[in-house]
Amino acid sequence: MVLTLEWKNGGLLLLDQRLLPNQVSYRECRTWAEVADAIREMVVRGAPAIGIAAAFGVALAAGETGDHGRMVSEIRRAIAGLRSTRPTARNLFWALERMEKTVSSAGSDPTGLPRLLLSEARNILAEDIEINRRIGEFGNEVVPDPARILTHCNAGALATGGFGTALGVIRAAAASGKKVSVIADETRPLFQGARLTAWEMREAGIPVKVITDGAAGFFLARKEADLIIVGADRISANGDTANKIGTYSLAILAQAHQVPFYVAAPTSTIDLSLARGDLIPIEERPAEEVETWAGERIVPTGVPVGNPAFDVTPARLITAIITERGLVRPPFEEGIRRIF
Amino acid sequence: MVLTLEWKNGGLLLLDQRLLPNQVSYRECRTWAEVADAIREMVVRGAPAIGIAAAFGVALAAGETGDHGRMVSEIRRAIAGLRSTRPTARNLFWALERMEKTVSSAGSDPTGLPRLLLSEARNILAEDIEINRRIGEFGNEVVPDPARILTHCNAGALATGGFGTALGVIRAAAASGKKVSVIADETRPLFQGARLTAWEMREAGIPVKVITDGAAGFFLARKEADLIIVGADRISANGDTANKIGTYSLAILAQAHQVPFYVAAPTSTIDLSLARGDLIPIEERPAEEVETWAGERIVPTGVPVGNPAFDVTPARLITAIITERGLVRPPFEEGIRRIF
Repeated sequence: MVLTLEWKNGGLLLLDQRLLPNQVSYRECRTWAEVADAIREMVVRGAPAIGIAAAFGVALAAGETGDHGRMVSEIRRAIAGLRSTRPTARNLFWALERMEKTVSSAGSDPTGLPRLLLSEARNILAEDIEINRRIGEFGNEVVPDPARILTHCNAGALATGGFGTALGVIRAAAASGKKVSVIADETRPLFQGARLTAWEMREAGIPVKVITDGAAGFFLARKEADLIIVGADRISANGDTANKIGTYSLAILAQAHQVPFYVAAPTSTIDLSLARGDLIPIEERPAEEVETWAGERIVPTGVPVGNPAFDVTPARLITAIITERGLVRPPFEEGIRRIF
Repeated sequence: MVLTLEWKNGGLLLLDQRLLPNQVSYRECRTWAEVADAIREMVVRGAPAIGIAAAFGVALAAGETGDHGRMVSEIRRAIAGLRSTRPTARNLFWALERMEKTVSSAGSDPTGLPRLLLSEARNILAEDIEINRRIGEFGNEVVPDPARILTHCNAGALATGGFGTALGVIRAAAASGKKVSVIADETRPLFQGARLTAWEMREAGIPVKVITDGAAGFFLARKEADLIIVGADRISANGDTANKIGTYSLAILAQAHQVPFYVAAPTSTIDLSLARGDLIPIEERPAEEVETWAGERIVPTGVPVGNPAFDVTPARLITAIITERGLVRPPFEEGIRRIF
């Protein structure tokens, strides 16, 4: 099994996901700024995975200065820098808050901080994998046998510490003996569905077929998908869910075809401070992601591009949110309060 | 203005649309088989344009044999060959039926056939441009001022003899002084929206923005489009409309956001022999179109791809069909009967 990220010899190895499926290559980060760049450039992506990577970035920051007097301020600068890399994924801020608490709890003596911060980052990683396995178990309850599951983008091992959220549910269903197959939206502009989800499912031996994002309606109309499961980047207190651009269209299609629509995410994705989804900040990514592929220009020069990286699916379109603490069903506001 | 296709020096020049927006280059066809290849490979695409190209292909076939005894059977072989290039666009069969009638009407003396067939192909081309202008005028009636218009794929000058159907309406609205702007779905897998529609609108001086297909819901939810206009490849007798894959999702989104959804097409797109849209044959295009772009592999090897080129939008999701004989509104079955 290929690892998404790994702490090794005092550095953070990140699988460069931009190169998949053509190349399995790791980028080594030895400074927090290198981790920040890797998150910004989407070497590592997926809400839980960028939270974990950022946590290791903070651990790196602690080792970057030998000067105890400046260490805490340097770490806080790293936390601020890592926080500004991407605006939507809640897990990034959640992981950095945990690292910040570790800094605060160390008090005025920073001697043990490098060790404490590395230990906390390792905890976040280990917990994430365990959380995903629990999401998989809870999610498996709603997967029929056989099941043809449509998914969007990549909410798999590559988007997390390992195992995956939406793909974790699919892995758990397959492991329990159910006959599952996957339809993967290719997920423009960066093709995470075609490049990453298809690759993960192929490696796991789970049948997968890739379609263009615009073809999802065609296959739903032909009753070729029994349910939809996606991940999440941020969930507001009422259950509205920000996820990869295109998820909202899929949820509208699910409703039109009476196909259940599930969101699989750890509770660290839930942002209780936001009452509704329209308050979630949506990242606008560089136009270049849409304009060109493999160096070839697709959009004529001088034509502007709209490239929102996420959209918000209203809670009313969601059948249930699958978390490590169980399934949350409507009314979501109440259900979410209950699991916290 | 760049021409989509042109009869010149006894051959058919086709703008190679696969190379746009990076290169304006023509392919010269001197045999009907070369025209058939160009249609199959999508050098020329768009339902009306492939009908016109096929008509010129038949004219070429008439000149390919000097043997009067074999001419008619050679022409009929060409018609059959051209008919088998692509299965969905009604206009292809419609144009070939007109050419077939010209052959039949010539009786037993084929002497004048080459001239008659070329003349008929030229008529089809000239009529198409005139038809598009009328579609533009009728369509302009439903375009508010200002108007932000979402479109999918390319139903423009490049998809027709000139001017365009959906984009013809937009051209007519702009020419009448209305402040119009366009949001173009990029339209995977072949990016006709990003490559062709954006290029046409830029050349026409009409503001255009390109978005990924999955982002249409995002912009509709933000109320950034006032109406949707698309073309059509085949319309059944009840108004169900086959058009580029992704159109159906857009129609579902239009309904969810209460945005009017228009189909602009010549009456030659309407197939009275099919009662409903589910009877329209849907072309499955090669997996390679989805698997790679610019020579770079996107889908991992060994993973299958679903690549339907079209989907069917049920009539109930369509606000009106804009034809050269006027607007057809629900109930479509009756309205379509009336214009024929």
